[in-house]
Amino acid sequence: MYNLSDWDISDVGQSEEDVLQNGNRLLTGNGYMGRRGVVDEAEAQDMPATILSGLYDHHGDLWREPVNSPDPLYSLIIADNIPVRAGDKYTVFHEQTLNFRYGIYSRHTSWQLPADRGKVTVRTERYAHMENVHLLCTRFTLCADISCQIVLKQGINHAVRDLNGPHLGNFHSWSLQSKRILGLSCKTLEQNIPLAVLSAFVPLFQESEVLNFIIKTDTVNEEGGIFSYHTINLKEKAAVTFYIYGAIYSDIDVKEPVTAAEDQIHQAIKEGWDNLLITHKTRWDKIWHNGDVIIEGDEYAQRCLRYSLYHLWLIAPRHSIATNRALSIPARGLSGQTYKGAVFWDTEMFISPYFLAVMPELAAQFIRYRIQTLPGAKRKAAEYGYRGAFFAWESQETGDDACSDFNVTDVFTGRPVRTYFRDKQIHISADVVYSIKNYFDITRNLLLLKEGALELILESARFFLSYLYYSPEHKRYEVLDVIGPDEYHERVNNNAFTNKMIFAVFETACNYIKIFKESDPEFIDDLINRINFKDDLLFMENVMQHFYIPQPDNRGIIEQFDGYFRLEDCSLDTVRSRLKDPKEYWGSSGGVATATQIIKQADVVTMLTLFNNDYSAEIKKANLDYYEPRTEHGSSLSSCMYALLACETGNSDWAYPFFIKTAEIDITGKSKHFAGLVYIGGTHPAGNGGAWLTAIRGFCGFSIENNKIKIVPRLPEHWKKVSFSVTLSGVEHKITVLKDNYTQEIIS
Amino acid sequence: MYNLSDWDISDVGQSEEDVLQNGNRLLTGNGYMGRRGVVDEAEAQDMPATILSGLYDHHGDLWREPVNSPDPLYSLIIADNIPVRAGDKYTVFHEQTLNFRYGIYSRHTSWQLPADRGKVTVRTERYAHMENVHLLCTRFTLCADISCQIVLKQGINHAVRDLNGPHLGNFHSWSLQSKRILGLSCKTLEQNIPLAVLSAFVPLFQESEVLNFIIKTDTVNEEGGIFSYHTINLKEKAAVTFYIYGAIYSDIDVKEPVTAAEDQIHQAIKEGWDNLLITHKTRWDKIWHNGDVIIEGDEYAQRCLRYSLYHLWLIAPRHSIATNRALSIPARGLSGQTYKGAVFWDTEMFISPYFLAVMPELAAQFIRYRIQTLPGAKRKAAEYGYRGAFFAWESQETGDDACSDFNVTDVFTGRPVRTYFRDKQIHISADVVYSIKNYFDITRNLLLLKEGALELILESARFFLSYLYYSPEHKRYEVLDVIGPDEYHERVNNNAFTNKMIFAVFETACNYIKIFKESDPEFIDDLINRINFKDDLLFMENVMQHFYIPQPDNRGIIEQFDGYFRLEDCSLDTVRSRLKDPKEYWGSSGGVATATQIIKQADVVTMLTLFNNDYSAEIKKANLDYYEPRTEHGSSLSSCMYALLACETGNSDWAYPFFIKTAEIDITGKSKHFAGLVYIGGTHPAGNGGAWLTAIRGFCGFSIENNKIKIVPRLPEHWKKVSFSVTLSGVEHKITVLKDNYTQEIIS
Repeated sequence: MYNLSDWDISDVGQSEEDVLQNGNRLLTGNGYMGRRGVVDEAEAQDMPATILSGLYDHHGDLWREPVNSPDPLYSLIIADNIPVRAGDKYTVFHEQTLNFRYGIYSRHTSWQLPADRGKVTVRTERYAHMENVHLLCTRFTLCADISCQIVLKQGINHAVRDLNGPHLGNFHSWSLQSKRILGLSCKTLEQNIPLAVLSAFVPLFQESEVLNFIIKTDTVNEEGGIFSYHTINLKEKAAVTFYIYGAIYSDIDVKEPVTAAEDQIHQAIKEGWDNLLITHKTRWDKIWHNGDVIIEGDEYAQRCLRYSLYHLWLIAPRHSIATNRALSIPARGLSGQTYKGAVFWDTEMFISPYFLAVMPELAAQFIRYRIQTLPGAKRKAAEYGYRGAFFAWESQETGDDACSDFNVTDVFTGRPVRTYFRDKQIHISADVVYSIKNYFDITRNLLLLKEGALELILESARFFLSYLYYSPEHKRYEVLDVIGPDEYHERVNNNAFTNKMIFAVFETACNYIKIFKESDPEFIDDLINRINFKDDLLFMENVMQHFYIPQPDNRGIIEQFDGYFRLEDCSLDTVRSRLKDPKEYWGSSGGVATATQIIKQADVVTMLTLFNNDYSAEIKKANLDYYEPRTEHGSSLSSCMYALLACETGNSDWAYPFFIKTAEIDITGKSKHFAGLVYIGGTHPAGNGGAWLTAIRGFCGFSIENNKIKIVPRLPEHWKKVSFSVTLSGVEHKITVLKDNYTQEIIS
Repeated sequence: MYNLSDWDISDVGQSEEDVLQNGNRLLTGNGYMGRRGVVDEAEAQDMPATILSGLYDHHGDLWREPVNSPDPLYSLIIADNIPVRAGDKYTVFHEQTLNFRYGIYSRHTSWQLPADRGKVTVRTERYAHMENVHLLCTRFTLCADISCQIVLKQGINHAVRDLNGPHLGNFHSWSLQSKRILGLSCKTLEQNIPLAVLSAFVPLFQESEVLNFIIKTDTVNEEGGIFSYHTINLKEKAAVTFYIYGAIYSDIDVKEPVTAAEDQIHQAIKEGWDNLLITHKTRWDKIWHNGDVIIEGDEYAQRCLRYSLYHLWLIAPRHSIATNRALSIPARGLSGQTYKGAVFWDTEMFISPYFLAVMPELAAQFIRYRIQTLPGAKRKAAEYGYRGAFFAWESQETGDDACSDFNVTDVFTGRPVRTYFRDKQIHISADVVYSIKNYFDITRNLLLLKEGALELILESARFFLSYLYYSPEHKRYEVLDVIGPDEYHERVNNNAFTNKMIFAVFETACNYIKIFKESDPEFIDDLINRINFKDDLLFMENVMQHFYIPQPDNRGIIEQFDGYFRLEDCSLDTVRSRLKDPKEYWGSSGGVATATQIIKQADVVTMLTLFNNDYSAEIKKANLDYYEPRTEHGSSLSSCMYALLACETGNSDWAYPFFIKTAEIDITGKSKHFAGLVYIGGTHPAGNGGAWLTAIRGFCGFSIENNKIKIVPRLPEHWKKVSFSVTLSGVEHKITVLKDNYTQEIIS
């Protein structure tokens, strides 16, 4: 079926830069937690992280961000009192590998110990269990070329790095069972949420043999955690193997996190490594069964796309489907604390479509997450003097906005710069509505609408109704003072994308009201009554008659916002040449792009892509030709929008490099690591989703029209065949797209 | 009557900083031209300037600015081939003095010449003639302590400094009458406007004696001008005197500038120094006769206020009253090329009231200037997609806006910063209308309204009608996206000052329409018809019913703009402590004030001052108390507004230091010389006018109510008496204000 090496990436050596990049490139996870691809002995400077989905904490004046759990898999070799680490002066070989078929990280490191104590080699394999999502598993194999004694320090390390911490306190630790099970409990500092972390150290060999190897074990409570120091006799060229199991629970997950973690650990020890690995791999096999996309004729694209899909699955909160607490996907996944672990429009626009195609019940979770954060969105609207729901630009668990008024640090003064992402990027509420419409189109499931999604739509519409203005001069309703997708141009009027999205909110609201008026009048009348939407509905119908959506000019080009065409029209190179510091921000008053037509990312082009059926091929081409040379693609959300639109205009080969740029963003690890002075490194789920979008919606021309699958094959020149699955109204379809035709098969 | 020394200021010594400051402090002029207070031998680095009112030029991509005329008074002493200059190593004494009763600059400098050639002393007196405004006069006296020979280089120097030049070309020069009259003609580079400059060198003594003193004269055309080198024999301790007359004409002034300049020079020579001085002083005496304000009990205030009035008169374009081309007063007067020689709202709000009181026909000129630039204001409105008249923020001769989109240079990057003064400071059109209303209130003269001022008012109203929006949410018309007087907060909504000013425009328009409907229906019907204002009028009446003007909150405080109260409320010291560079700009995205409640200058307080009768003393006090500690007073327009409002609340002693700060701004020369990296030094006519406003409207409580003078004495504690004149409906009133009462006398 597949060649395992196609699914591997590896890295030999360990430079400082590598450590940061590999943390993301070799990431593992299971939706509950993300585990950065760092070595077992990683310390704070290596940025080790075990990020828990949906658990946040706030420290002092710093940004609120996800909690980095204490690390139960910490292991360090100490030879002759000297700790050895990957990359230190004793290292003679170091390789790390990720198998992204099964999300298994492995490392292989050899050290030539000082004073002729021989060479010691460590091989470990590690994964976050896909079925038991609170469980982390490591197999640790140790071998020396001459007999020697080493100490293995193993335990729970809570001296992990926080970007804006510390977030944990109240540490309490204990050991059980001959010091081979260690426990640590703590609480988050802002909300006092208890967290329990257990670590089990399990020698492979019989208990009777253990004493031959493990001379002694001392357990020590240190400032940075609780650790057992195992003094181990290594015999010449005889490998010894241990298993390390970690379990993590918070009281958001269960009432008794400590008990649950202990149960999980005992259960893991009982099942053993081999059985655990089988259930883990079986779950991945199921995922790939309908989640995979097979490309024939382009090995590199195949590899990049699969790696992208891997990244989506390792952060997909499948475990929340059965619970009352829906989770969504943060913009940097579970790769660390950057972007505050917050959910952006990325999820709705770029990530959700993939899951909607292959696991719609997960896409529903993203919508449920927004429904659950509706109170926060209403608070935000009220805070700015509006009614309805203004969703958080950076959303955490409550829907209150984590976005600050100062998102950028001036590289020249070190001072915060006032940005307007939080207050002016109002399209976020429309993005959420757009994703609900998509969900309904592909599932035809009215239930979610009844369970809060329609209320969310109406509250979003209400927000926009309270935001807009009427221009007596132009006799139309306008949307003033916003930021569109292109963040380099702040506080613009009548951003075409935003206006079009808002109009779609009104249309969607009207449409669903109509559907329910016919199918379930009691529900809709109750809803309108309960949320007092009657006057808004009348007003909305009036607004729709006189609502301004910027139209193409005589060249077919749609102006991005009022006055955009009057900005300096210079090249990207010219703008770039004006930079005085490679890390400086291009937007805001003093930015190099602000007064020019250079934009950060697809804006009008995103609109044309999303509202594909509303514009002719000529209009699409004219705008593509106009805007692409003026786009920095300073966001991972940009390239795929250009690729998608290019496909629509029949130019898949032009689109291809944009597709590759999107699909390879995380596998190469070559992306922006800084915005101003703020570290923004991490994975790019929106890029990962954008890669799928481009392959499937772009090259395969997949869409849903009137509840039917539509395929318009337009593969790149060298592609032979693409196979993928889609679940439509609960039925799974296997689709194979060839050059000029396609097949479609229902999987029962 | 007066002690001449009360009217003198002098400066001994000559540091580099002094040169820049003294250029402004010792400024002379006559409304046609301003002559910086620099020594006769000033070269480019000393920033000599002879600025001609209303003559502008544009070079390359640089700012358009007033033309600095070639200098016909240039004189340099050369001893033994060594040129000597004030402040050089040979200087043993240097003093400069300005008599501001008569606008006479004098200098007294001694040099100890090298190689024991003795000490040479120069005394000169110089003024710009107040009656013959094209004429500059210098008396030059030379004396040596031992007999020696020196060379006097005298002539027309066009190597003057331009901020954004060069502006002149096509130089042609000649000499007449034994090389004692030199001529230079040239043209401005942008518009090819011819300029003629003549310089006459006139020895005091009889022609028969001249040869005893002047050994020879060589005239040389140099790169920097045309000069005569007079070789002069000085006898021990025997002073020799020359007169130098300069004449400057452009073809804006006369058809034949060369002929006119020659005529002026011959006329001057014929009249001679003594007669010229008499006519010059007589004109000043007339000006002071009703222009002076006499303060008893405060010599310093007296001196500062008189010096301020002097500055207003030396830039007052009296000469344009008789012509078809009205002139106004630039924000930096005629003190140089800073602020582009442009007319700002300063004229209408701060300068015009003084002239309106003492020479209403000059205040009318400022209005005529705006009427003449109405086409430019209409072009500017159209440029931004509006109708009506949007006056230039920085207005030159055509009314097209000289203001750039980038008014500030970032001190850290050296790059231009996008500012919004040009596009968003829309209150300028309302300021112009406000000044017309003031003019009418004090003159009751309908003629100016018929001669274009009413059309200007209606076009301004039309501009605002096309600018405003209706908020369906709040059921009111709002004014969005503006900058109020406080420029540190850009692009705000519903700035109280701006909204109030706009409403006053609508009221003023309706009021005058009503007046003319009764008094001259044919005129008003024709006008409304001609400019097609009928629909606008109907709409305006509707707007006035639902127009939003921010009101005091429960503390009595009016929020400066929507959301101002939500900004960080920290002290001025805190904000100042965040500066990383003393020259950095406080506004724009990255500025230290932007996200705080710290404001640049009076904003709500200006509104309360202008609309004095609309608000109670409690409201005034509440706002004064709230806003003053939050005001940087980073503009010369700020302090006097606080002082005026404080007087209204009965607190003249609190107001007094603000009055002094305003009144002494030019006499001390201690004002902001840089905004970002841009040199903004020069005089402060608005401050000069503000000083008068505070003394007369503030401390004397002068106002006009129903065409009657109203006085509410509220002198500062130590003031005994203030006397001043006001012309009301063409009748001059002499007013004397005492502590608790006042007298009023009509001057026939």
